[in-house]
Amino acid sequence: MTSAAFDVLGIGNAIVDVISHADDAFLATHKLAKGGMMLINEQQAEALYAAMGPGVEISGGSCGNTMAGVASFGGKGAYIGKVRNDQLGQVFSHDLRATGVSFATAPASDGPSTARCLILVTPDAQRTMNTYLGACTRLGPADIDTSLVASAKVTYVEGYLWDPPEAKKAVLKAFDAARAAGREVSITLSDSFCVGRYRDEFRDLVKNKVDIVFANEAEITSLYEVKTFEEAMEAVRKEARIAVLTRSEKGSVVVKGGETHAVKAAPVTKVVDTTGAGDLFAAGFLFGYTQGKPLPECARLGGIAAAEVIAHVGARPEQPLRGLV
Amino acid sequence: MTSAAFDVLGIGNAIVDVISHADDAFLATHKLAKGGMMLINEQQAEALYAAMGPGVEISGGSCGNTMAGVASFGGKGAYIGKVRNDQLGQVFSHDLRATGVSFATAPASDGPSTARCLILVTPDAQRTMNTYLGACTRLGPADIDTSLVASAKVTYVEGYLWDPPEAKKAVLKAFDAARAAGREVSITLSDSFCVGRYRDEFRDLVKNKVDIVFANEAEITSLYEVKTFEEAMEAVRKEARIAVLTRSEKGSVVVKGGETHAVKAAPVTKVVDTTGAGDLFAAGFLFGYTQGKPLPECARLGGIAAAEVIAHVGARPEQPLRGLV
Repeated sequence: MTSAAFDVLGIGNAIVDVISHADDAFLATHKLAKGGMMLINEQQAEALYAAMGPGVEISGGSCGNTMAGVASFGGKGAYIGKVRNDQLGQVFSHDLRATGVSFATAPASDGPSTARCLILVTPDAQRTMNTYLGACTRLGPADIDTSLVASAKVTYVEGYLWDPPEAKKAVLKAFDAARAAGREVSITLSDSFCVGRYRDEFRDLVKNKVDIVFANEAEITSLYEVKTFEEAMEAVRKEARIAVLTRSEKGSVVVKGGETHAVKAAPVTKVVDTTGAGDLFAAGFLFGYTQGKPLPECARLGGIAAAEVIAHVGARPEQPLRGLV
Repeated sequence: MTSAAFDVLGIGNAIVDVISHADDAFLATHKLAKGGMMLINEQQAEALYAAMGPGVEISGGSCGNTMAGVASFGGKGAYIGKVRNDQLGQVFSHDLRATGVSFATAPASDGPSTARCLILVTPDAQRTMNTYLGACTRLGPADIDTSLVASAKVTYVEGYLWDPPEAKKAVLKAFDAARAAGREVSITLSDSFCVGRYRDEFRDLVKNKVDIVFANEAEITSLYEVKTFEEAMEAVRKEARIAVLTRSEKGSVVVKGGETHAVKAAPVTKVVDTTGAGDLFAAGFLFGYTQGKPLPECARLGGIAAAEVIAHVGARPEQPLRGLV
């Protein structure tokens, strides 16, 4: 196998976050389930935006956040995702490139505008996400540069890519190219509602296609339709090559065959906004993994990155993660 | 005089801030004078943006920030300013309206895009601003609704409006309408470089046209081309009806004829980003003033608002200012 130009190639929904504060009454009025990610259409997005308070725009997207984190650790990252050639698309592209991530996917020149995620942060630091996929629905197999896939040690994708119609075909093309090049592939299950929408496909992927699966407690118990974390952990142990399971303040557990590595959460003075915690955990883990670190050390790096991002508003690191190791 | 529908009508350059962190070396490389506001053209804006780190987009504009502050105190505010009908224009409009400010100026449907201010925050919490005026250059007298002016207790404008070609004509039309309706008018000198560009006109305004002038130490000494704050204070005392002079951590001084009211700065635990300090001081002062409060109390409210905004990134309040009084 030739040496790799990139540590991690991420494929994801390219989204600009619009973050605002809201109280529980606002969530109730607009029938929003706290902590979840809901897909909304353009009309719903406009109506919710009109009702929301003033916002802050920050580039986001689960996998985009992860790639910004990988770069912040000093890892070499590339990204594939679809924006439109509009102002928010320029914002997304600039911000990702400014972190040092290579991003060359052609923006759509017509059709829906760049995706937005309207995020409501409640006083308990929980985020409730409402995503208008916009231009992400234009991502397809033609956007996958197989030589780019072959040049990355790990190709990492988000489960959310099963939502737009053509994106999963792009993912499967990328997985095949990675396999053919002797590279590894990884997926995050993204969110428990997403698991509910695509459970059978995700179980097939975990069992037959991916090397590393990331999931939090709600996602992994949903995947196997079991009640306890322990049952889910034993179920995924039988099917996945490596499973990285995050448990918020309880830390994380990495399972690989007979091995089980439980790692404590990194300390956080004050949790301000949990947006991006899982994304950044994946960043730290993948950075460590592609540097050849042992699994517990990978999980420790994941915890450090997650702790940084939940201590401020926004889902990308504010300080260089390499300085925190 | 009929009762007023609005406490304050603000007229300003409608700008979306793009805030990023930078070090002193970056400022030196790009020949940026720390702490100042520099006007840049579209090509310069694109070049600087390409060189900058990842940004956060937040609605700004000096007067827009002030009006958001007035509303945050519970004051009734309206705003006149020009955006384009593009995504950043929608962001600006949404955010200002979401604070409760009435904003009805028609957006430009062609021409340059919505204005952006590329703000570099250095580790010492100073901000260096680089403004591409874009659609603000389309603000003119036709945008002044004289009945709206007549319905506001105070019309407040920013000195920065002398930069776009037609905006000062709009301001003078508004001042005339306010006078005719028996209302008061106010201006901030905005920035010492701005004073340098329009010194004679600003001196004429302070002496002959406005009721309340806001200036910081650098601006007022530049206006009268004197070396010390005390000299400037005595000079403005002779010419202005009310002068509100801000001195950062030294607090503020309000001068009105023979009266001099020195007010201490409100305590701040950690200064994170000084962007918006002057804007929010004006907000608190004008809120108090339009509620009929004594001048020292107006200055105290200004200090509270300034202290809130410098304790976080971004130039608009994050928490309701009425809760801090």
